[in-house]
Amino acid sequence: MSGTSADGVDVALLEVETLAGPERQFAWEMVDFISVPYGDAVRAEILVVQESGDHVLERITRLHFVLGNLFADAVERLATDAGHDLSSIDLVASHGQTVCHFPRLHSAESDAGMLTGSEAWGSRDEDGSWVSPATLQIGEPAVIAERTGISVMSNFRSRDVAAGGTGAPLVPRIDHLLYADPAANRVALNIGGIANLTSLPAGVALEDVTAFDTGPGNMILDGLVHRLTEGKQRYDEGGAQARRGTSDEAIVEELMADPFFSRTPPKAAGRGEFGADFVERLHNLGNAKELSQASLLATAVSLTTRAVRDAVDRFLDVAPTELIVSGGGAHNVALLESLAARFPEARVVTSDYYGLDVDAKEAAAFALLAHLSLEGLAGNIPRVTGARHPVILGDLTPGGTGEYSR
Amino acid sequence: MSGTSADGVDVALLEVETLAGPERQFAWEMVDFISVPYGDAVRAEILVVQESGDHVLERITRLHFVLGNLFADAVERLATDAGHDLSSIDLVASHGQTVCHFPRLHSAESDAGMLTGSEAWGSRDEDGSWVSPATLQIGEPAVIAERTGISVMSNFRSRDVAAGGTGAPLVPRIDHLLYADPAANRVALNIGGIANLTSLPAGVALEDVTAFDTGPGNMILDGLVHRLTEGKQRYDEGGAQARRGTSDEAIVEELMADPFFSRTPPKAAGRGEFGADFVERLHNLGNAKELSQASLLATAVSLTTRAVRDAVDRFLDVAPTELIVSGGGAHNVALLESLAARFPEARVVTSDYYGLDVDAKEAAAFALLAHLSLEGLAGNIPRVTGARHPVILGDLTPGGTGEYSR
Repeated sequence: MSGTSADGVDVALLEVETLAGPERQFAWEMVDFISVPYGDAVRAEILVVQESGDHVLERITRLHFVLGNLFADAVERLATDAGHDLSSIDLVASHGQTVCHFPRLHSAESDAGMLTGSEAWGSRDEDGSWVSPATLQIGEPAVIAERTGISVMSNFRSRDVAAGGTGAPLVPRIDHLLYADPAANRVALNIGGIANLTSLPAGVALEDVTAFDTGPGNMILDGLVHRLTEGKQRYDEGGAQARRGTSDEAIVEELMADPFFSRTPPKAAGRGEFGADFVERLHNLGNAKELSQASLLATAVSLTTRAVRDAVDRFLDVAPTELIVSGGGAHNVALLESLAARFPEARVVTSDYYGLDVDAKEAAAFALLAHLSLEGLAGNIPRVTGARHPVILGDLTPGGTGEYSR
Repeated sequence: MSGTSADGVDVALLEVETLAGPERQFAWEMVDFISVPYGDAVRAEILVVQESGDHVLERITRLHFVLGNLFADAVERLATDAGHDLSSIDLVASHGQTVCHFPRLHSAESDAGMLTGSEAWGSRDEDGSWVSPATLQIGEPAVIAERTGISVMSNFRSRDVAAGGTGAPLVPRIDHLLYADPAANRVALNIGGIANLTSLPAGVALEDVTAFDTGPGNMILDGLVHRLTEGKQRYDEGGAQARRGTSDEAIVEELMADPFFSRTPPKAAGRGEFGADFVERLHNLGNAKELSQASLLATAVSLTTRAVRDAVDRFLDVAPTELIVSGGGAHNVALLESLAARFPEARVVTSDYYGLDVDAKEAAAFALLAHLSLEGLAGNIPRVTGARHPVILGDLTPGGTGEYSR
């Protein structure tokens, strides 16, 4: 317990015994109690974030609950769409919206490598603020539980980050379950905002799976479209525009010098690496300003698939004979064509080929990760995230309203 | 699932069947899938909070993990202190640090009353930001679970807020368990930063318990000490200074005009109501500037106990014959003396009298609330919080590291 005065942590040790009988009454006894004051710096930091300008903390907190409601809306719509009563659903797995992801101590030092032990528990930065590896997915699960009456598994990434991992990617656990094959060398490639691959050479064991973010997925493409159309369009549907353009390989070459691409996995990227700043960089490179919109998009497509090819050549022992593409990028024909050209020795298919809608794959994967957690099974792969060991992912929020006694 | 591009929610419905056999393998099938786009305003709000100035979001997120580590430290210290091995502890209940608490739609409109139904799910404020009743306790439970190997119950307040409640106070559920008596009319009074009471008239049923924040506890006292000593002291130890002063009842009278005091319960207060601004107000009232430090503190003590007396007279049907005081304020002799003077008809004791250290009570209460949640029992009292119904409180984070199969 730490109260409104933010002066420290009160810790009580209780022995609780559930008594015989159907009412589940209990006896208890306090064994010990200590009070651990916060240091002045922590106390100051709490006050700083509470009183920060523009009501940022209030907006985040309210958005956390608003998103919980939007997620509940979405669950209700799915149930209606599927003709299932909400009461027939046992569990909601909610990934939440990532708004902050710094799995290493210093976001600026992306080459700092993995932190272990007490070093990772947090320390003071030069500007006086507290730092620790950290990640934040918002969308309050209690709101989903309250609205739907269904128990919710959420907050999948934190435990892996707490165990020294990057908290991502987590889907490789499920890729192994879906696609690992005794004979085929497969790569599962998900192209969302960021692209990530899971390498599944023939007969690979779960512990030996390699997976990491290869670099940008749709993030740069969408950023370019948004920028070039001044926000009128959000993406290049089906890759139609990019297919009409010609990529500028000099620009691709220059962007591939970004240190992210040569970093040894495990590694994860986000808006920090390939957001607006990167789009700005691309736009100012070489003769980018003289390129047509179509050719700029073709260049971004080429960068995306070049990053995948480079990653395969640099970091995988076995080249794939099959690429299974999922995510929004699987709708982009320009991306698929460019991939096929870069992997002439492999078959490029989308996850639909294996019966899994390319858009649904990631949501389905988190539902299955939640199932693993419910079963008490580990959901991360230490080789993939850099965590010190496998962990059970997520927090479980009960859906029931409960009674006062049984 | 909602990804880095923050464009909407992907929802998949899966049927999962655990197969016979000790390995808990499972079969699954995707039943349906829909994609629900975020509205432009929500998408914009996500980008706004992500890109807000001074790295506020990053600092909050890192503080969330730093506090998780400090809480784990505190648990380890308690276990050492008590001579218990961590592995002998079944559950950690972590209240977390409240950094934001707006259980109503508009923080400014404290008289707006309770919101129900879809009105509470969030809407856009005039300045374009999204609003919803919301609360935020930080201190990542996955860090505590990872560090200690113990399962963690956390996030106690969100479900009550999601059910339309104020999310506080929650301890009355435990007060009833501890102090309800067939014959005695008792009031449990906790004096932390904020003071709150639980009314337990003889034979009261759980559903009929009244409890609410009466107003300031130590918050104004501590704020005054901090201000008057320019931060050199943090509180008036034992109330020694206040006991040497004389309260200015004209100032008390004027401050009691604050609308918080006359608002009908359920109601909750925080730093917003009785923080630095209120201390500033007190300091500028009447002849406050001519009062000695001791008399200013005596005035704040008098305000605190006057608020309790007024609340009892205004809102309780039965006056107590016994006041059971807990919290840091129970160490303040000036507060206890002033309470005794304001309740001449009642016995004023501290919770120590009932075998519960005044400082440990709130921590112990959250341990017991966590036990109720584990048992699937409700932890809130709708009459107290304004929630639409009882709910099971909290999220459960598994402590185990898990294996890949059984």
